Amino acid sequence: MPSVIPADSVGLVTPQTLHFDIPLALSCGRVLESYDLVIETYGTLNADASNAVLICHALSGHHHAAGFHSMEDKKPGWWDSAIGPGKVIDTNRFFVVALNNLGGCHGSTGPVSINPASGEPFGPEFPIVTVADWVNSQARLADRLGIRQWAAVVGGSLGGMQALQWSIAYPERLRHCVVIAAAPKLSAQNIAFNEVARQAISKDPNFHHGRYYAEQVVPKTGLALARMVGHITYLSDDGMREKFGREMRSGKLSFDFNPQFEVESYLQYQGERFSTAFDANSYLLMTKALDYFDPAAEHGDDLSAALSHARCRFLLVAFTTDWRFSPERSREIVDALVAAGKPVAYAEIESAHGHDAFLIPSPRYMDIFGAYMNRILATLPSNEGRA
Amino acid sequence: MPSVIPADSVGLVTPQTLHFDIPLALSCGRVLESYDLVIETYGTLNADASNAVLICHALSGHHHAAGFHSMEDKKPGWWDSAIGPGKVIDTNRFFVVALNNLGGCHGSTGPVSINPASGEPFGPEFPIVTVADWVNSQARLADRLGIRQWAAVVGGSLGGMQALQWSIAYPERLRHCVVIAAAPKLSAQNIAFNEVARQAISKDPNFHHGRYYAEQVVPKTGLALARMVGHITYLSDDGMREKFGREMRSGKLSFDFNPQFEVESYLQYQGERFSTAFDANSYLLMTKALDYFDPAAEHGDDLSAALSHARCRFLLVAFTTDWRFSPERSREIVDALVAAGKPVAYAEIESAHGHDAFLIPSPRYMDIFGAYMNRILATLPSNEGRA
Repeated sequence: MPSVIPADSVGLVTPQTLHFDIPLALSCGRVLESYDLVIETYGTLNADASNAVLICHALSGHHHAAGFHSMEDKKPGWWDSAIGPGKVIDTNRFFVVALNNLGGCHGSTGPVSINPASGEPFGPEFPIVTVADWVNSQARLADRLGIRQWAAVVGGSLGGMQALQWSIAYPERLRHCVVIAAAPKLSAQNIAFNEVARQAISKDPNFHHGRYYAEQVVPKTGLALARMVGHITYLSDDGMREKFGREMRSGKLSFDFNPQFEVESYLQYQGERFSTAFDANSYLLMTKALDYFDPAAEHGDDLSAALSHARCRFLLVAFTTDWRFSPERSREIVDALVAAGKPVAYAEIESAHGHDAFLIPSPRYMDIFGAYMNRILATLPSNEGRA
Repeated sequence: MPSVIPADSVGLVTPQTLHFDIPLALSCGRVLESYDLVIETYGTLNADASNAVLICHALSGHHHAAGFHSMEDKKPGWWDSAIGPGKVIDTNRFFVVALNNLGGCHGSTGPVSINPASGEPFGPEFPIVTVADWVNSQARLADRLGIRQWAAVVGGSLGGMQALQWSIAYPERLRHCVVIAAAPKLSAQNIAFNEVARQAISKDPNFHHGRYYAEQVVPKTGLALARMVGHITYLSDDGMREKFGREMRSGKLSFDFNPQFEVESYLQYQGERFSTAFDANSYLLMTKALDYFDPAAEHGDDLSAALSHARCRFLLVAFTTDWRFSPERSREIVDALVAAGKPVAYAEIESAHGHDAFLIPSPRYMDIFGAYMNRILATLPSNEGRA
């Protein structure tokens, strides 16, 4: 608990729920007649609404990106290391918007929400949503907030895919696109890990074909397994070696099946914790959004063609030991942007932390990211007279 | 089915069950009063018993390494590509012994066997066995077969760990040690994947704390998940890309949770098939044997010290895209052997097939492996007068 709110925190924040009544046509062909988006904002929108930054979240993320909900909170928002007064995404200068995506389980319309058509939770009836659908819903959010053009759309992992999609779908509506630890599409191996997670959840006897809410149970075992597999792919082999090595809890082999290596306890704890904090149907949807993202597909697998109408500047960041979305995958995006003649900066950051590195404020990462964000501030349209 | 047995096959083979009555003290402190080992042999033991090769199996392997059990068999033994007349392990010259290890589920004493103390299957009462225990049981097998010294002990993956353990525990009893796609101990990441597999199995409601035999069920879901995770780690990212890419079964996105990418169907099929063919308790034991293998631990984490008493020559082989046991892990063994002044040859083979490459007869792999085995033949003690 923060007995004192740190000076570089956005402080106590309150989520807002925005209701949207204009039907949203989804990629799957279905229509969401109306929906809620839960958001948080940090900082102040300037007079010409040119200082707004959209934060897109990853697989298990949400709208609570920075600050605290109460003085009792043990932890701040998930990207508090990067968002705050004087931080890389400086809330003294930027107006920062973070949301929970459709299909999520933190307040925006998703499987746990009541389906107005049935009066029951959507559950498995919730449509499969795509990155493109999310970006469409985020564009409406921008309309609602009076933001015609984002100073930047920023995201890591699945969030980076949303940022990339913004540059393709709404080229006039962002000036900068920051894509961190992402990929232009999943590899077969990525899809394979997602499928293991989905099988673990859907084969859990408490899943009940996704209608577990009515049964007053949750598929905890499956969700915990899914999270365990996920965690392995978020960490690097090197990072795990540094963090756990082959350390044993008791110091010696127990010759039984209780967890004895530190890494076993860690994974079990992470799985257990997640299984009571996240909705299984939402998890399934998030993995499908990842699997389906492939903006080049509509352009004959030519990513450069897919990006040809982009109008923003790009920053791509990758981490050396990230094997979920390796630097090679970021370079595919960089190469496509270069081929399309787009302005792109690329940083490959040395880190032992694997995919998780995008959440860890390592010095060179923060330096490069911060310098890029400062340049955005220096070139805000509202600054032009002062330059 | 082999309508005709290929000329380079060992042909139709029949497993033998050998019963051992001398109690075997295990690393865990318990004693197996008696046990069976199921073996197959190919070729003929020469007069001075100097041409015997022991094949050690990996996680899900067994004694059926080559040839066919009947004319109806669809597939030969698991290493038929390397074992046979004129093949790399030439059964015209070598006497080859393959066994099912203790704790396995293919006929050697394991969890499915009847515990003489209870008259019920051992199930979870079967002791946790280690690589060292296996090698001790294999030494008794050698005694039984009249083999004082193996021409070579050969294994891939967990089998390679057994070969390495032979060189440490019975230095006088092998002349060559062939360690393929192995590691001197598991990394935290390796252990983590094993723990996911164990959790998947042990949390399956049909596991019944390992006493599922009495319930007439098997924890199929858990075992299938375990195998799916395993398969991902056996294949390389590159290999999966080559084999599956993002190919879809129907050619387009289905917007549902049925398998639609080829890689999903493949994994589901592999998991399903394995879940009815392998015993869950055996799988748990095999993963523990992997986790526990760490011969350097008793020597202050100095692998070179652990190998200092070895008397054999070594061949180490690793595959470039193997990320389960990467070439780096094999080089740890090579470096320790060099530091200990032991004769070692090392080959790093280009392959897209990841860890599975050790089972695939790629040309350079077979050339190097074959040349090494031929040199063993050329230097058999029984040849010495002829040299």
